[in-house]
Amino acid sequence: MKKFSHIGKSLPRPDAQDKVTGKTKFLADIHVENVLHAYPVVSSIPFGKILKIDYSEAHHHEDFVAIYFAKNIIGKNQVGVIIEDQPLMADDIVRFIGDAIGIIVARNSESAVKLSKMIKIEYQKFDPYFSINNSKSATENFIHSTNLACTHRVINGDIDAGFKKSDYIIDASFKTPYQEHYYLEPQSCLAVPDENSIIIYGSLQCPFYVQKAVSIALGYDFSQVRVIQTPTGGAFGGKEDIPSEVCARAALAAVLLKQPVQTIYGREDDIQYTSKRHPFQMNYRVGVSKTGKLLAAKILLEENAGAFATLSTVVSYRSAMQAMGPYVIPNIQVESFSYYTNLPPAGAFRGFGSPQATFGHERMMDTIAAKLEMDPLEFRLANILKAGTSTQTGQLLPSSVGAEQTLVKSSQAASWKRNTPKFDDRYRFGLGIAACHYGNCLGAAGWHMDGSAARIQIHRDGSVNVSYGLIDMGQGAITVVTQMTAEALGINTDRISVLPTDSLNVPDSGPSVASRNVVMTGNAIINAAEKITPILLETAAAALDCSAQDMTLQNDAAINNKTKESISFTDLSEILYKYNKQVDFSGWWHVRPLNYDPEKGLGEAYYTYSYATHIAQVKVDTITGIIVLEKVWAAHDIGKAINPAGIEGQVEGGVAQGAGWALTEDFIFSDGKARTTNLSTYLLPTAMDSNFVETIIIEEAEPEGPWGAKGIGEPAIIPTAAAITNAVCNALGYQFNEIPLTPEKVLNAIEQMKVKGF
Amino acid sequence: MKKFSHIGKSLPRPDAQDKVTGKTKFLADIHVENVLHAYPVVSSIPFGKILKIDYSEAHHHEDFVAIYFAKNIIGKNQVGVIIEDQPLMADDIVRFIGDAIGIIVARNSESAVKLSKMIKIEYQKFDPYFSINNSKSATENFIHSTNLACTHRVINGDIDAGFKKSDYIIDASFKTPYQEHYYLEPQSCLAVPDENSIIIYGSLQCPFYVQKAVSIALGYDFSQVRVIQTPTGGAFGGKEDIPSEVCARAALAAVLLKQPVQTIYGREDDIQYTSKRHPFQMNYRVGVSKTGKLLAAKILLEENAGAFATLSTVVSYRSAMQAMGPYVIPNIQVESFSYYTNLPPAGAFRGFGSPQATFGHERMMDTIAAKLEMDPLEFRLANILKAGTSTQTGQLLPSSVGAEQTLVKSSQAASWKRNTPKFDDRYRFGLGIAACHYGNCLGAAGWHMDGSAARIQIHRDGSVNVSYGLIDMGQGAITVVTQMTAEALGINTDRISVLPTDSLNVPDSGPSVASRNVVMTGNAIINAAEKITPILLETAAAALDCSAQDMTLQNDAAINNKTKESISFTDLSEILYKYNKQVDFSGWWHVRPLNYDPEKGLGEAYYTYSYATHIAQVKVDTITGIIVLEKVWAAHDIGKAINPAGIEGQVEGGVAQGAGWALTEDFIFSDGKARTTNLSTYLLPTAMDSNFVETIIIEEAEPEGPWGAKGIGEPAIIPTAAAITNAVCNALGYQFNEIPLTPEKVLNAIEQMKVKGF
Repeated sequence: MKKFSHIGKSLPRPDAQDKVTGKTKFLADIHVENVLHAYPVVSSIPFGKILKIDYSEAHHHEDFVAIYFAKNIIGKNQVGVIIEDQPLMADDIVRFIGDAIGIIVARNSESAVKLSKMIKIEYQKFDPYFSINNSKSATENFIHSTNLACTHRVINGDIDAGFKKSDYIIDASFKTPYQEHYYLEPQSCLAVPDENSIIIYGSLQCPFYVQKAVSIALGYDFSQVRVIQTPTGGAFGGKEDIPSEVCARAALAAVLLKQPVQTIYGREDDIQYTSKRHPFQMNYRVGVSKTGKLLAAKILLEENAGAFATLSTVVSYRSAMQAMGPYVIPNIQVESFSYYTNLPPAGAFRGFGSPQATFGHERMMDTIAAKLEMDPLEFRLANILKAGTSTQTGQLLPSSVGAEQTLVKSSQAASWKRNTPKFDDRYRFGLGIAACHYGNCLGAAGWHMDGSAARIQIHRDGSVNVSYGLIDMGQGAITVVTQMTAEALGINTDRISVLPTDSLNVPDSGPSVASRNVVMTGNAIINAAEKITPILLETAAAALDCSAQDMTLQNDAAINNKTKESISFTDLSEILYKYNKQVDFSGWWHVRPLNYDPEKGLGEAYYTYSYATHIAQVKVDTITGIIVLEKVWAAHDIGKAINPAGIEGQVEGGVAQGAGWALTEDFIFSDGKARTTNLSTYLLPTAMDSNFVETIIIEEAEPEGPWGAKGIGEPAIIPTAAAITNAVCNALGYQFNEIPLTPEKVLNAIEQMKVKGF
Repeated sequence: MKKFSHIGKSLPRPDAQDKVTGKTKFLADIHVENVLHAYPVVSSIPFGKILKIDYSEAHHHEDFVAIYFAKNIIGKNQVGVIIEDQPLMADDIVRFIGDAIGIIVARNSESAVKLSKMIKIEYQKFDPYFSINNSKSATENFIHSTNLACTHRVINGDIDAGFKKSDYIIDASFKTPYQEHYYLEPQSCLAVPDENSIIIYGSLQCPFYVQKAVSIALGYDFSQVRVIQTPTGGAFGGKEDIPSEVCARAALAAVLLKQPVQTIYGREDDIQYTSKRHPFQMNYRVGVSKTGKLLAAKILLEENAGAFATLSTVVSYRSAMQAMGPYVIPNIQVESFSYYTNLPPAGAFRGFGSPQATFGHERMMDTIAAKLEMDPLEFRLANILKAGTSTQTGQLLPSSVGAEQTLVKSSQAASWKRNTPKFDDRYRFGLGIAACHYGNCLGAAGWHMDGSAARIQIHRDGSVNVSYGLIDMGQGAITVVTQMTAEALGINTDRISVLPTDSLNVPDSGPSVASRNVVMTGNAIINAAEKITPILLETAAAALDCSAQDMTLQNDAAINNKTKESISFTDLSEILYKYNKQVDFSGWWHVRPLNYDPEKGLGEAYYTYSYATHIAQVKVDTITGIIVLEKVWAAHDIGKAINPAGIEGQVEGGVAQGAGWALTEDFIFSDGKARTTNLSTYLLPTAMDSNFVETIIIEEAEPEGPWGAKGIGEPAIIPTAAAITNAVCNALGYQFNEIPLTPEKVLNAIEQMKVKGF
């Protein structure tokens, strides 16, 4: 096996010191002269028609500058990322509390917020839809032309035949709730207009989405809109689609006023106005043989899309493609429906439909195992995907299938042995297991934007700048980009500075989502290095008067492997310069075309998959109902760990976030209004809640991944909630099919069981 | 001959409207929060040793922020661009009035200037050197370790044998003076520091010189220093080297204070502190046959380099290589010496030693013609370089030698016929001719930095951004970059936006000097287009289901030349995006290695040459001594005119600037102090002084130029002063061998002639 110099080693984050010492400049730390402050004016009702807008009170305020509505939009009033269903500012119908109607501009940020609340709007109110069932049963008064935002399906094999062959057919239903991203830094941007162009600075995940949205709103060419990502204080998907509207409105105000305009959302408004994880309700019917082989599954996934589709269509796609998890299932039918409701649009959130579907299939696997009286681990091992088997969409997996290993290694680490619940103790202990697979990158539904760039610029002093089209939102992209560049060129990491992502500097590289960064940017770096390396070697060979074929780049030098003569990379850079060699290269990589049939949902849904198993150990207090997550063993097949410390960080963070979703993050809307808009009501896990995670790295190299790597960002969270819930079910002997497992829910379950003689 | 869509057509400047309406944001128009203002503290004596610095008065001023000296420099105290002879701030010896000793920082720009003058410095004064003769005769107390800054020579053939064969040997001496750039926008920059990096905005010609200078001063890697050129209000060479020191001092203050720092020079200080055109004194000895064939030349060029070498070595190189002009001369010896003096460093100025040498060889040609009683045009035609002949350095010219045509076409346009001076009229009329050649780009002396980049980025809406590593300083680079990109890709110019030059965005492309932009950037654009075109054609062919070989890019579309089916570039861009094609390409071009022997000054001094002839018609008032330049016919062989209107602009501007140097711009130093520091004492020509220029474009295509093009920026000025002087000599029958031809000088000459019976 090839030895790596940088890949597989834990490089400290280049951005860490500035972040922990408070030196990093986030958006709110950028100060430009003459800046104005904009804030959205939003609907205060969930569904209705705007009759009249009275802004006279705000208008008379000394800090008032301007207010703009849909009619002031220069370009097109449309900000829908996939489906064109979302006006940038409502001109007629409002569809959720927080739906933007206008943008008010004030001299300072406090006044902007204050004035935004002083606008009096008269509405004709319509009956709102809040629940999936409510929405789907509507026959008129739809939220859009229909209440169905989108649908996806998978039809593979013959489910009727499969069920007929089954010894058992088990039905169960599951529900998963909202989850709020609660990124530390709220939505924020700064729009700086020039005569014929505009620069947008923003806390965002997808510079090129913003470039498109601003271009559309302003009627500008893409070439007139430059987007620069500022250091981003968390995102988790919440800065995938939302910044498009935040930035487009600020850009509009900036261009109309010919002055810089900043928008920074307050926390409570951010929570009310912006996207969250889609709530799902799921029905599973699964047929198995008595020997424990999965034979057929019929699955219905229903999602609450909120007021606009935003990314629902691709969230729905991913959950449908992965609905039965990392198992061989010969006959399957999945239907996935997203319904509009009068709640804030649900959008991207780490996992992107996978944690929900995984809650479904993994609770289902335990339910079936219980029915079969099989050990849940054994049952999973009997059905797990392996190299040479096919996924539920009929996609043959040739290699890099570490699913089984994640089960084996995590269960070994956990000394897997299921407890029999003890009925008399106050504290009950349980062990739960959940496995998942995760299709890397955008898959067939998003293939048309699954290409990414990296640029490597070698300076004459041997320092190196790397630009890339994806971004660091705190996940450690800068670190792995540094390592991968160092490895690709055989140079030291301290030569390398990764530049802030800037649409001027790199081509559209698609969104920074779907755990794409390592795979896409890594391959693009390799592509760039393939262009640079021959030039470096030929130049070095000429200087040493030998053949380039005898030379390699390693140990920060070009080395003649025969004579052991070498030129340091610093000297080589100076020679490159003096000989007028090109020293700036763009690398590009895109996912190969996928053979996928969207009608039946068959074929290559994604080009490869990451796999994971989480095993959770819980302690349940039967008096208070409080669940303590004592330990998680998290085994991840990520092909190749570029930065093991980064993997651990991702997994610990993912587990904490999954645990929050499973246990404490009880997001409440009432009448369309969020009631949990701060940390005293919306209980987030903290760093103290992830110190019990044991990360197990499994490296089943993916041939198309850089150095074999696959994505980790999202797999880290996907199985956690299901594993915890399975553990709680084990501890209490009660089947929980809905999260969060709040103390109330636990006590209520215990009460029910007592009634039943528990 | 291939028909072009954009090349050869006069595109209006994309940047013109904003410039004439005052919307363009020059450096002083950029406002950042918390900016501080820095100004150099300079020597008030021409030569001496610093004994004591007292800044207590400034220190007590309420606007004082800080003052820094050599000892505060973090990196290396060195800003010499070629020879390391120039401290960023003097720590011991000062060498001219204006030599920087420190940098003072104040809360506003007015105070920065005021406080900079309040520093009391005690010196031990040394005897200063102001003239070349004074400097070269020194035997001790040198300005540096020697008073000779640099030397170059050409030794070709056998001059002794040549002179022996000559029927006549003619000697003459010439002198040319200082010329001040007098760019409209003074030296200015803004340094914005971040934690570990810095961004420099500046009015400058050479972003990569500044990047280097700032890196050295701060001890930073190149990758930590980003330089962005702001729209630059004139430069003419005066922003080649000087911004390195201006920016490095501002950067130092910014990093030490951790705050943005701006420096904007006042006009009078700009004139006192910064570079000018080198004064030359020249001795020519030339042997000719009585039939008018040049047989031998011995030429001595001596330049006043001022206090530091800066670019003197390459100015000296160029003047030496071109010392005998565009003529066949079998035996030649040229020696060129630059001497340090205690005056501001002479530096780059449009023409870069050529206008001086051309004044020498073209006054010499007229002097010889007079001796031979030959018509000056005929004499030149008898010796002019042609394809198949060799230059004075023995460089065989295979093609693209339009020298003869410039003589023929300009003389035809001017109906060339020499006046015999009329002795009795108050107004005398004269016609003068001067020819030149100009080595394109940096030549053998600067070959190691003669590579340049262009980046083309195609957006999904079909808009296109172009980045390049050279800059627009007002000469129209943006226009030709737009045209060349449009031609290279067969698209319309209105799709194209040229981005401001930014070291982050493009690799080191060498300096924006030596009339390099069209040649270097044009070839780099072609290189980028060669990478893009196959992708565009293959994508279009796939969409039209035909062969890419049948397709071309033209008329803003990809067209199947057989079926005439086409896809618009807009549609093609969207298809590119959807199919994940790379749409961002870096092009690179460098001048081929030159076969040159620096010992003897023999071989390929430059890879090709532009040629020009100017014919000037003057009216001399014998009572006032005022010379009116009535008409200039300017014929230029530029290979291929990319933008004819731009060529005319360059030629009209060049002629005006050349006329200023010849007639009115009488720069005066006394005791090292500039006495002509404003427009009432230093008389610049204006736009009204160039409406008499007839530009004649000759296109002898250069195979290595883009679309055949060669440089025009500098040839435009080179022969003007010589042609005017030859015309005045013709009008008065007096041999002027020194400019400027001020009324005093004219009246003095008339006086002398009267004494002699004129």
